[in-house]
Amino acid sequence: MMMDYPLLVNTMLMRCNKLFAKKEIVSVCLDSVFRYTYGDFFSRVCRLANLLQELGIKKGDVVGTFAWNTHRHMEIYFAVTCSGAILHTINVRLHPDHLSHIINHAEDKLLFVDDDLMSSLEIIGDKLSTVQSFIVLTDKEYLPQTKLANVFHYERLLKLAKEKYVFPRDLGENTPAAICYTSATTGLPKGVRYTHRSIFLHALTLCTPDAIGISERDVILAVVPMFHVFSWGFPFCATLMGSKLILPGRDLSAPTLCRLIETEKVTLMAGVPTIWINLYQHLESGARYDLNSLRYILNGGSPISKALVEGLEKKHGLTVRGTCGMTEATPVVLTCPIKSYMDTWDEEKIYSQKAKQGMLLPGLEMKVVSKQGEVSHDGREMGELLLRGPWIAAEYYKDPARSAEVFIDGWYHTGDIVTVDDEGYILVKDRSKDIIKSGGEWISSVDLENTIMGHPAVIEAAVIGIPHEKWQERPLAYVVLKESEKGTVTELDILNFLKDKTAKWSLPDKVLFIDEVPKTSVGKFNKKILREMFVQGK
Amino acid sequence: MMMDYPLLVNTMLMRCNKLFAKKEIVSVCLDSVFRYTYGDFFSRVCRLANLLQELGIKKGDVVGTFAWNTHRHMEIYFAVTCSGAILHTINVRLHPDHLSHIINHAEDKLLFVDDDLMSSLEIIGDKLSTVQSFIVLTDKEYLPQTKLANVFHYERLLKLAKEKYVFPRDLGENTPAAICYTSATTGLPKGVRYTHRSIFLHALTLCTPDAIGISERDVILAVVPMFHVFSWGFPFCATLMGSKLILPGRDLSAPTLCRLIETEKVTLMAGVPTIWINLYQHLESGARYDLNSLRYILNGGSPISKALVEGLEKKHGLTVRGTCGMTEATPVVLTCPIKSYMDTWDEEKIYSQKAKQGMLLPGLEMKVVSKQGEVSHDGREMGELLLRGPWIAAEYYKDPARSAEVFIDGWYHTGDIVTVDDEGYILVKDRSKDIIKSGGEWISSVDLENTIMGHPAVIEAAVIGIPHEKWQERPLAYVVLKESEKGTVTELDILNFLKDKTAKWSLPDKVLFIDEVPKTSVGKFNKKILREMFVQGK
Repeated sequence: MMMDYPLLVNTMLMRCNKLFAKKEIVSVCLDSVFRYTYGDFFSRVCRLANLLQELGIKKGDVVGTFAWNTHRHMEIYFAVTCSGAILHTINVRLHPDHLSHIINHAEDKLLFVDDDLMSSLEIIGDKLSTVQSFIVLTDKEYLPQTKLANVFHYERLLKLAKEKYVFPRDLGENTPAAICYTSATTGLPKGVRYTHRSIFLHALTLCTPDAIGISERDVILAVVPMFHVFSWGFPFCATLMGSKLILPGRDLSAPTLCRLIETEKVTLMAGVPTIWINLYQHLESGARYDLNSLRYILNGGSPISKALVEGLEKKHGLTVRGTCGMTEATPVVLTCPIKSYMDTWDEEKIYSQKAKQGMLLPGLEMKVVSKQGEVSHDGREMGELLLRGPWIAAEYYKDPARSAEVFIDGWYHTGDIVTVDDEGYILVKDRSKDIIKSGGEWISSVDLENTIMGHPAVIEAAVIGIPHEKWQERPLAYVVLKESEKGTVTELDILNFLKDKTAKWSLPDKVLFIDEVPKTSVGKFNKKILREMFVQGK
Repeated sequence: MMMDYPLLVNTMLMRCNKLFAKKEIVSVCLDSVFRYTYGDFFSRVCRLANLLQELGIKKGDVVGTFAWNTHRHMEIYFAVTCSGAILHTINVRLHPDHLSHIINHAEDKLLFVDDDLMSSLEIIGDKLSTVQSFIVLTDKEYLPQTKLANVFHYERLLKLAKEKYVFPRDLGENTPAAICYTSATTGLPKGVRYTHRSIFLHALTLCTPDAIGISERDVILAVVPMFHVFSWGFPFCATLMGSKLILPGRDLSAPTLCRLIETEKVTLMAGVPTIWINLYQHLESGARYDLNSLRYILNGGSPISKALVEGLEKKHGLTVRGTCGMTEATPVVLTCPIKSYMDTWDEEKIYSQKAKQGMLLPGLEMKVVSKQGEVSHDGREMGELLLRGPWIAAEYYKDPARSAEVFIDGWYHTGDIVTVDDEGYILVKDRSKDIIKSGGEWISSVDLENTIMGHPAVIEAAVIGIPHEKWQERPLAYVVLKESEKGTVTELDILNFLKDKTAKWSLPDKVLFIDEVPKTSVGKFNKKILREMFVQGK
């Protein structure tokens, strides 16, 4: 019948080198912008693969990265996976206890680390039981002083390595290519192993027009950290299609991103709501750039408010497309293109639609279930999103107990409480642990947050459920006001603003003003800390 | 790790019904245009799947179709494959001997046949050893008189069938889903079996922007016959993305196609050069339509001449994208997007590039080899295109002898003689059996044809190699002149026109004028017949 030919990251890399060797990768270093071609990139990937071999890394060995979005990180992505080893991208913002846990749990043999991040590893250096050496990614000629042992200089080792490398031809598509850990708000982080097949299919599907739609003509600004589920797949998509790739390094501030968009003529970028809130604030403050090259911006990580979508689109001419992903899903599962016949909808309805996470990607299967079974697709009934498909995890790595909690009867139970409208678009209402159960009704903390953030004086709002004798739980809102509005806008103002926008029973019992909403290591609202703040009476 | 979740045609169908039930399929019947939604389509697919079951069709059984591009053919595509049976789309233009051979060879149990095509099956009815019954696809209420036995009326059976059907959940992605036979210019047609995996990956890849780029917003006019390797995949792509699909039925004349483009606002269509030559002639004759909805037209089957690309683009505002496919490859392997940095090229160079077949699709691997090994990518050195990948065949069905001729060491030897330029674009110069070997030099018959077709008086030209004592082979050109130029343009005129456009040693020894170039069943120049004509002294 058909050839038994595997779906491999290798195939992406080889074809990219043959067809797109002249295309550019741009990497923002500390003081300068580094540019090279996919052809140069390929040579260095080959050298690095030889280096890995010389360092004793074999098929199935785990190699960790502790780094920002740079060309060197990109080289490691491909050299590790294409040589048959397993790439472990470590979230640089994890708590030290979590850091040492996941490095030991994944059994990293080698760690690549950015020079400015070495101190985080020095703290836990003596706890790392499997790491044999550290290779430092640096623009400087000499290594910094360090307490770590077996530390090498990336560029110097690369220069010594042979240039010619023959990538293995005997990898099966179900070979593990990478591992990521969740950013764990409860308990220790959980590991998910990705196969060549899952990475390939995910990237290919993202390239289709109604997912993200990526072509050779695109210029991708990879804002999402490469330690955060492969920057949502963009490094792989760019290589698959030969798109110009911009890796912004450490500084993700709005002015820096805007300058990059303007100078590199960026067409696509993705990020969490915090990125868009900052961008919006920056543009609102009067800063002006030529952002016309942007086809659209992709929101993910957390839901974006309708008010923000409307603000970015109407006031600043951007186009927003929602997405939804998770560590367990390589990561993207939903995207929010607007169907052709919706063009006749009125503006309000379109913005509501655009604030949704969207439709299931082709190749996947979903169910939304409540205790009563599958929910009706009416945009109202809430249930948990269940997924299956070729890029959905089947288990957590070496963690049968916690695997059994969410991987049930062949379905991944996402913990996302969602509605589905009659067009098949999903709106994430809340995490199952964050939804507020008040007197038999479910109140979505995310809905309340987004409604509050529609108030012109509000920058951010986070809502948690607090225990209540009669109603079981009641909503409490933490609100961040604009500097100029502090002391002016009151709790009553916020409650009055909400009155005609939300059901009476879902109005917060209390509104507290704070200076900043605490965030998790990937930029989401950290409600665990907010709950602790409440218990401690802050 | 990741779920073991198969790539199935079923997944496309289910998702399409859930997300795009309101989108339309338009089918041109004899006297009218039939429209329904993917939702209605799905209901009928379910009924048909029940009907197949009642008729005793089991997993792995082969079901044949002998039909034009209609909604009923589309229903059979999905009911057969998604229920686990094997779809055999039969080329309605095959010679009766070939027809009976492939139906018996594939072991078709059931044949679906368009009412106006029944006579072709009646001729061979007594030779069919496996077919148990015929189901007639017709707009009429009653069946026509026929010599065939066990003949049923599609619509009546469908009405009787149950509507609810549960598609099997236990199909593996390597389950055969379909079989097609080559249109065989030498020997009997060869069968290629496609798996769910190959069909899914091929369709998904075609949807990426640099392949074809198909989204929900597209309106696809499926001109390529559905009996010709799945109309190049469009029925599957449309279902995968929820695109509106126009099935044009029997009449593929230029005026009919132009009217369809205008009224249905078609964005994409694909076809063989004959379709484009007819379209060009029609537009040149002064016919005017609004064709602005067309994003581009895709040429395949045979190479298109640079002159035709230039004519269609410059004079009629169309955009051409080349492709290349083959029965052995599900079928598409190359597409010809223009890379972003080529936008600065001059017009002549762009049109030359656009007349190429293009770049290898992601996921595939290729080699171009001559007797000296891999050719250099200089756009000059010719070699045979070798392919491998997940939608490339590994064998011909039940034909080990002829399989061994082209499936060698894991590579499919396409028989296409090509060049590769320094940008990785392939130009098909000829079929290995058609290339003219003249005194140690290779002369591409296709190049010569395209150059001759650049002459303003010429409609078509076909070149064959004829035996020559000294030079081994020499080119002979058969030329079709425009009606108004017949008797006016001479052999010498053609040779003079060629003089400064081609090497002296590749000038044809003889130019013969004919009324029409004989075509194969899929619309390609039939050089076998031309060679016979030459031998018979015509």
